[in-house]
Amino acid sequence: MTNSKKPLILVSNDDGITALGIRTLVEMMQPLGEVVVVAPDSPQSGMGHAITIGEPLRLRATDIFEDIKAYECSGTPADCVKLGKHYVLKDRKPDLVVSGVNHGSNSSISVLYSGTMSAAIEAAIEGIPAIGFSLCDFAPNADFSHTKPFILEIAKMVLQNGLPKGVALNVNFPKKSAEPIKGIRICHQTDGKWQEEFEKRKDPHGRSYFWMAGNFVNFDENKEDSDEWALAHNYVSVVPCQYDLTAYETVKLMKTWQLEEGVKQ
Amino acid sequence: MTNSKKPLILVSNDDGITALGIRTLVEMMQPLGEVVVVAPDSPQSGMGHAITIGEPLRLRATDIFEDIKAYECSGTPADCVKLGKHYVLKDRKPDLVVSGVNHGSNSSISVLYSGTMSAAIEAAIEGIPAIGFSLCDFAPNADFSHTKPFILEIAKMVLQNGLPKGVALNVNFPKKSAEPIKGIRICHQTDGKWQEEFEKRKDPHGRSYFWMAGNFVNFDENKEDSDEWALAHNYVSVVPCQYDLTAYETVKLMKTWQLEEGVKQ
Repeated sequence: MTNSKKPLILVSNDDGITALGIRTLVEMMQPLGEVVVVAPDSPQSGMGHAITIGEPLRLRATDIFEDIKAYECSGTPADCVKLGKHYVLKDRKPDLVVSGVNHGSNSSISVLYSGTMSAAIEAAIEGIPAIGFSLCDFAPNADFSHTKPFILEIAKMVLQNGLPKGVALNVNFPKKSAEPIKGIRICHQTDGKWQEEFEKRKDPHGRSYFWMAGNFVNFDENKEDSDEWALAHNYVSVVPCQYDLTAYETVKLMKTWQLEEGVKQ
Repeated sequence: MTNSKKPLILVSNDDGITALGIRTLVEMMQPLGEVVVVAPDSPQSGMGHAITIGEPLRLRATDIFEDIKAYECSGTPADCVKLGKHYVLKDRKPDLVVSGVNHGSNSSISVLYSGTMSAAIEAAIEGIPAIGFSLCDFAPNADFSHTKPFILEIAKMVLQNGLPKGVALNVNFPKKSAEPIKGIRICHQTDGKWQEEFEKRKDPHGRSYFWMAGNFVNFDENKEDSDEWALAHNYVSVVPCQYDLTAYETVKLMKTWQLEEGVKQ
């Protein structure tokens, strides 16, 4: 299976293997190479970069995609990439890992909570070029048709050029509308946050519980190189993301605090 | 409760509210301010930046810490900080959020999988100075005594100086040994990864399952400004971490790919 000359492409997601979004992604990858799917057996939205520790993982072959080798996994998106790389494809390193297409935005700060992007970042850690794709539409039957030419072009470019070490791409698409997509913008992650509000309710036994809800707050309004601006103006946003979290400027700053000379045991 | 002039300090963790590590942290925070605990009701290790979507959260007051207002929460560490900030402490923003002390290292790439650090980063998103503390010892009865003067000093410094916007500290302590801790080092996140190996077994019903195991691989060996080097040489490592994942150099690079001029719908 893994001896063809065509690029080997591992596909995963966080909405689960039966989602419409992963079906779109598999369809777009087929002309580009040999496709293998390892995806969660149930929805994993909001799982961030969670991994399964202390519990075993299940992996089951499935014929859900005609003519495509596919496996459903009991773990998180990051688990799927780990199992895909180190077990399913242990004889040949994938040339590309793609994740999605997520039902829902992963722009701005949502990248941190995103299972879709954790699969891509896990692949980057393994030294594999990787892209997470997300559509700003949560509907299970969302229309993905307008995303297809962009998925194809971005994946081709990454197969051709690779990506710098330690970087994966976070690609978001505007929701399908009457207006055609204007094009692609290479962006930075918008500075923003979710302003949570917790709704307190009582269950039938009188015990309280909370629903998390909230609105997105954009601190980068009108910044044309931010991903939120691009999406609001009907562009596809592409943010290269790195997993080295070190704030190097703060390293320099903190050296002036003389913490290093202070406490001794 | 929240009207005193003392700094208000929110404490969380990912090992759960009954862990020894959070007890150490609460003890060290008491001289510094008014302490409130919101922590998971069960262990959440490896949860990364997971949040609870689509399910309600429970929050229950507990007297597990004498004279300290404490709540156990059914959610993840990030959920705990969100509930702590927006519900428990909605009348007064905390001056500091501390998370841990984690039973186990969160140095190098482990910061991505860390529930401990996701609590700290969630606080940073809220504009609150935050620190995650971790001990390189997984034992439930680990000895935290050598960490105490450093926790106190680092927390004092952060209360005094604040932290730059968008940054939280990842502090790791070497396991207790006969040799005293040499001091503190301000470091970068070591470039490294977990080289996974999956052990396949059969359950009593003949179905296979997998245990994830693996070894840490250090690509930054001998780099004296890396957190792994500091810990291996018996220093406390402090890595300032940012949640803006944008790889700005790659933004520049990708603009030369002319993706932006390419595909139109």
